Amino acid sequence: MPQVVGRQYKEILKKYLESHSEEDLYVGQQFSRRFIEKEIAPEDVISIHKSALLELHPELQDEVWDSLDFLIEMMIHYGFTLRERQSLIRKQE
Amino acid sequence: MPQVVGRQYKEILKKYLESHSEEDLYVGQQFSRRFIEKEIAPEDVISIHKSALLELHPELQDEVWDSLDFLIEMMIHYGFTLRERQSLIRKQE
Repeated sequence: MPQVVGRQYKEILKKYLESHSEEDLYVGQQFSRRFIEKEIAPEDVISIHKSALLELHPELQDEVWDSLDFLIEMMIHYGFTLRERQSLIRKQE
Repeated sequence: MPQVVGRQYKEILKKYLESHSEEDLYVGQQFSRRFIEKEIAPEDVISIHKSALLELHPELQDEVWDSLDFLIEMMIHYGFTLRERQSLIRKQE
């Protein structure tokens, strides 16, 4: 599953990087709903993003990949908080 | 407040991009707890990241900034879901 999602993400990102259109940006926003339904953590979104960008633009400088690694770390507590809140809601139901 | 956080984020990111050390990565991860406490949305983290990287490495290619704009859109539903779960928990308390 993550591979399929990663491939789809790459296609949508590629389209946006070529078109810069609001519509393609919106496609991305809608696509992210599916990520949440599949319980893909926000830190995994950054990983998927990094892999997609690496395939599309391997020529980008090291700072780009390093800074995305940093961003993955920044998102870990967001992922944790999302799961924690979900589990609190389930307990209260 | 967002300006202060943005400045601090830039400093931490800068240190990590220079050192590549696990410790500096960990500083970032810890710093993100404060973001969550201050209810900074995940899409705003990407914005803060973009601004910091732009100040540190304005020479990076257009694809970097465009791809971060795309990532901001991807995070919007995550931010929404976080707030929604928080408000559900508050209602049930």
